[in-house]
Amino acid sequence: MPQALPAPKAPLPPRRARGLRTRTAILRRAVDIASVEGLEGLTVGRLADDLGMSKSGLFAHFGSKEELQLATVEMARQIFVEQITRPALSAPKGMPRLWSIIDRWLAYIERGIFKGGCFFTAASFEFDSRRGAVRDRIAEIMREWIGVLVRALEQAQKEGHIHPKVDPTLLAFEIQSLAIGGHWASQMLEDRQSYFRSRAAMLEKLRSVATPRCPPLPSSKIPSRRTAKKSQSR
Amino acid sequence: MPQALPAPKAPLPPRRARGLRTRTAILRRAVDIASVEGLEGLTVGRLADDLGMSKSGLFAHFGSKEELQLATVEMARQIFVEQITRPALSAPKGMPRLWSIIDRWLAYIERGIFKGGCFFTAASFEFDSRRGAVRDRIAEIMREWIGVLVRALEQAQKEGHIHPKVDPTLLAFEIQSLAIGGHWASQMLEDRQSYFRSRAAMLEKLRSVATPRCPPLPSSKIPSRRTAKKSQSR
Repeated sequence: MPQALPAPKAPLPPRRARGLRTRTAILRRAVDIASVEGLEGLTVGRLADDLGMSKSGLFAHFGSKEELQLATVEMARQIFVEQITRPALSAPKGMPRLWSIIDRWLAYIERGIFKGGCFFTAASFEFDSRRGAVRDRIAEIMREWIGVLVRALEQAQKEGHIHPKVDPTLLAFEIQSLAIGGHWASQMLEDRQSYFRSRAAMLEKLRSVATPRCPPLPSSKIPSRRTAKKSQSR
Repeated sequence: MPQALPAPKAPLPPRRARGLRTRTAILRRAVDIASVEGLEGLTVGRLADDLGMSKSGLFAHFGSKEELQLATVEMARQIFVEQITRPALSAPKGMPRLWSIIDRWLAYIERGIFKGGCFFTAASFEFDSRRGAVRDRIAEIMREWIGVLVRALEQAQKEGHIHPKVDPTLLAFEIQSLAIGGHWASQMLEDRQSYFRSRAAMLEKLRSVATPRCPPLPSSKIPSRRTAKKSQSR
């Protein structure tokens, strides 16, 4: 995800602004539906039913299923930027900022755990053997995201928080794998502690590559099954 | 996967044996098709076309799409046991046996890279939000597999090859996550080095938990893009 989206240049005319608000509300609901039922399950008819809107009203916003899917992917990316990468910029450069990104990312998946886990992991696996504009856009966003992790890791090396010998590309791959593994164990094995495992493994990994100069990382105890249940149903 | 399948008790009558051979041949092809096109794409009609058999001939073996899917999942499990967990038993107990399992597993995925990656990872993500017998069986096999990893890790601790403080469940989760991450990067990002990254990260992880008594592990250099391409097109 890029570090920030461009700010709107001038106030929109009221009607245009209202249309945008409706579109945003529709797409936020579309992201929720797609994260549970998949992007393929997201049809204009399905979404119109869910929102109590007419199909033709929705068609005014999105001409086709593919256009709706693409707009939903863009909305998911925007939510990711707003909730994760942009607020993480307020943390100091280096390991604190890297951990802020990872922490917000995991917290976001954990909060949404009953709505189908990580949107982009689900979308990746749904589209990985397909061809077309939706798959290409998801792949592009995933490359962009890996790039964010790699740059944050490189910055942590520059700040002297991570050993200079560490390969940032391999470490970004490991971090991403642990998040996908958490999604898999949560969805497939119904393992309620899966994202705690992701978090614990990531912290252990980051500790193993941290220099003595690195600011302290949080502790990484995996809660008992009971605590895990409670904290997830909040 | 269990360590071994029960051996057949007595020779089968010739006709029964022929039927079994045909069934096996059909299912081996079904595993290949399903690993690329998904288990949902695997219909009796699709498979009959592919094998140049009649639909009714295939229906004699599998009464329904679900029965065909379940039999395909069983065959994939059997291939996994034959190619990975059973031959690994010939390696000495402890880290050598654990690494033999992981090495054979990765080699198997790497060889099959152009046939849709890891069958069970693809099947997991295809069925993770569904209900029914196929999903339940995949989840059962995945739990069995995590159990194999956990037991191999515990045995390596008993042999004094892995530090006793290490949590085998968390380490099994990390190893599984790195393999799934390799599948994801290979399928979604078309990263030809993805399984080398999985291998390198797993070796690094195992080295970090190994005791001084542990027999040496292989080196874990990630090959250049060129070498990666060559070794995968062999």
